[in-house]
Amino acid sequence: MKLVRFGAAGAEKPGLIDGDGDLRDLSNHIADIAGETLSPEGLAALAALNASSLPRIAEKQRLGPCVAGTGKFICIGLNYSDHAREAGLPVPTEPIVFMKATSAICGPDDDLVIPRGSTKTDWEVELGIVIGKTAKHVSKEDALEHVAGYCVLHDVSERAFQNERQGQWTKGKSCDTFGPTGPWLVTREEVADPQNLSMWLKVNGETMQSGSTRTMVFGVAELVSYLSDFMSLHPGDIISTGTPPGVGMGLSPQRYLKAGDVVELGIEGLGQQRQLCISSS
Amino acid sequence: MKLVRFGAAGAEKPGLIDGDGDLRDLSNHIADIAGETLSPEGLAALAALNASSLPRIAEKQRLGPCVAGTGKFICIGLNYSDHAREAGLPVPTEPIVFMKATSAICGPDDDLVIPRGSTKTDWEVELGIVIGKTAKHVSKEDALEHVAGYCVLHDVSERAFQNERQGQWTKGKSCDTFGPTGPWLVTREEVADPQNLSMWLKVNGETMQSGSTRTMVFGVAELVSYLSDFMSLHPGDIISTGTPPGVGMGLSPQRYLKAGDVVELGIEGLGQQRQLCISSS
Repeated sequence: MKLVRFGAAGAEKPGLIDGDGDLRDLSNHIADIAGETLSPEGLAALAALNASSLPRIAEKQRLGPCVAGTGKFICIGLNYSDHAREAGLPVPTEPIVFMKATSAICGPDDDLVIPRGSTKTDWEVELGIVIGKTAKHVSKEDALEHVAGYCVLHDVSERAFQNERQGQWTKGKSCDTFGPTGPWLVTREEVADPQNLSMWLKVNGETMQSGSTRTMVFGVAELVSYLSDFMSLHPGDIISTGTPPGVGMGLSPQRYLKAGDVVELGIEGLGQQRQLCISSS
Repeated sequence: MKLVRFGAAGAEKPGLIDGDGDLRDLSNHIADIAGETLSPEGLAALAALNASSLPRIAEKQRLGPCVAGTGKFICIGLNYSDHAREAGLPVPTEPIVFMKATSAICGPDDDLVIPRGSTKTDWEVELGIVIGKTAKHVSKEDALEHVAGYCVLHDVSERAFQNERQGQWTKGKSCDTFGPTGPWLVTREEVADPQNLSMWLKVNGETMQSGSTRTMVFGVAELVSYLSDFMSLHPGDIISTGTPPGVGMGLSPQRYLKAGDVVELGIEGLGQQRQLCISSS
C-alpha cells in the first residue's frame, strides 16, 4: 500500500493511493497514519479494505508528511562510503547516529525555508524507515518485522550550523522544513529489496545525486537492530539512513541552495518530492 | 504552581501540589499538562482555580514526567565551566546542542535501567526548562515569556556509548529511563531567579554534585533565544541546561552506576528525584 496524509498542514487526513494512482480517503476507517495503524495488524486491516469503495478525492491536494506521531527522527551519518569520502571523513565502523528535531518534519512538496543567516543550506536524498512495532534488542534477522514501510526523506542540512557552530550536528539538521517526508509511506511488502533502490536528486533540473541503497554501509535490518540496542523504537519513529554522494558540500566549488531554487528528489518505487526554496520571513 | 502528572506510566492524570503539599486532581479541568495548558492563558486559568475545591488524592501515587507532549528533548553540553574542565574539554563559546530521545523520558522516581552492555552509566543533575509558547527568533529579552516553568532533570549518560562508539553523543544519552523529569513543573512566577538555584546529586547517600545555576555559561534566557534561531520551540519541548561538576567520568578513578545504587538529586524550589538502579532485563 501507498499511505498518505493529505490536506492543510496540521489538519491532514489519512488516505491511500489506489491502483489507478487515485487518492482515496481513509478517514472513515482510521484517525491517522500513526501508532496502532502502523502495526502489522493495523496495516493488515487496511489492506483488507476494498480501495474502490473508499471515497475518491478528485481535487488536487497538498500532501503532508506520510506519517504522524513521530517521537524520534533518527538519522544515520556517513552511511554511504562514497559520501563519507566526499565529506573528507572515514567510513564509519559502526553507525553514526544523530537526531533531527521532529518539528523539522513537513510535507514532501512544502516550501523549503532557507534559515535566517544561512550560507550553506545543502541537500541529501535519503531512504526513510518508518517503525511499525516497538523494537528493543531485536536481532538483525527479526528487525524488518518492526518496520511498517519506507519513504523518501530529504535530510536538509545547514553545513555552517552543523560544522562551524561548535559541538554536535543537531543545529544544522533541525531547522523548520528541514525534514520533507513522503509523498507515500510504502508498506514493507511492496518493497522487494530495500537494499536495491535507485535514488536521485536534482537542483533546478540538474542531477546532483544519483545512487542506490545498494551501497549503504549499514543496511536497513542492521540499522533497526543496532538502534534498538540503544533505545526502544516506537511506532511512527523515523530512521533516515544516510545519503549517497553528490551533496553541495562535496562539490568543488561547494554549492548551496538559495531562494528560488527548486529541489526534486526521488527513490525507486517510493515516489518523489519537489521543494521550492524560499527565504526565511 | 507546582504541576504534576500522577498514576501508572502511560496513564497519568494531571494534578497540582497545593499549599499544604497535598496532591489535587486536575483531570476535571484539563486533559494533561501539555500543549495549550502550558500557554500563559492556560496557566492563568489553572492559577484561577481554588485548589482547595479540587479533589484531594490521599493515597501515595507514582509521579510521571511532569510534562507530556514533548516533541523535542534538547540538551546543552558543557554549560558549566567547571564541568567542561572535568571533562577535559574547552568551555564553549556558543551553546553545544544535542538531543535526547523523547522515549527516554520517565518519572522522577522510576527505576533507572542500566542498559545492556553498559559499563559507564553516569549521572548529571540539570535544570530543565519547559516551553509554554511557541518560540522562533525570540530575543533574549523576550525569551522567558515563552517558558512555562522549570523542573529537575536527570540527564543520565552512558559514557562509553557516548564517546567510544563513534560520532555523535545521541547513543549515550537516549537509552530508556535516561530522562527522569520532575517531580514538579514549577511555573515561572514561582522561580524568582532561575540563575540562582542550588542543585545537588547523591549516590548511595554520598554527595557527588553540588552546584548552582549561577555558574552556567549560557543562562536560561540566552539558551531559549539561541535555540529559537535554529528551530521553532513548541509547548512541551524540554531544554536541559547542562550539569555542574561532579559526574562519575570526572572522578579519579572514574565511578559509574551499577544495579542496586540509589541516586537522589534535587534543585532548590523544584523538588527532588530518587532512582533505584536496576539491571536491564
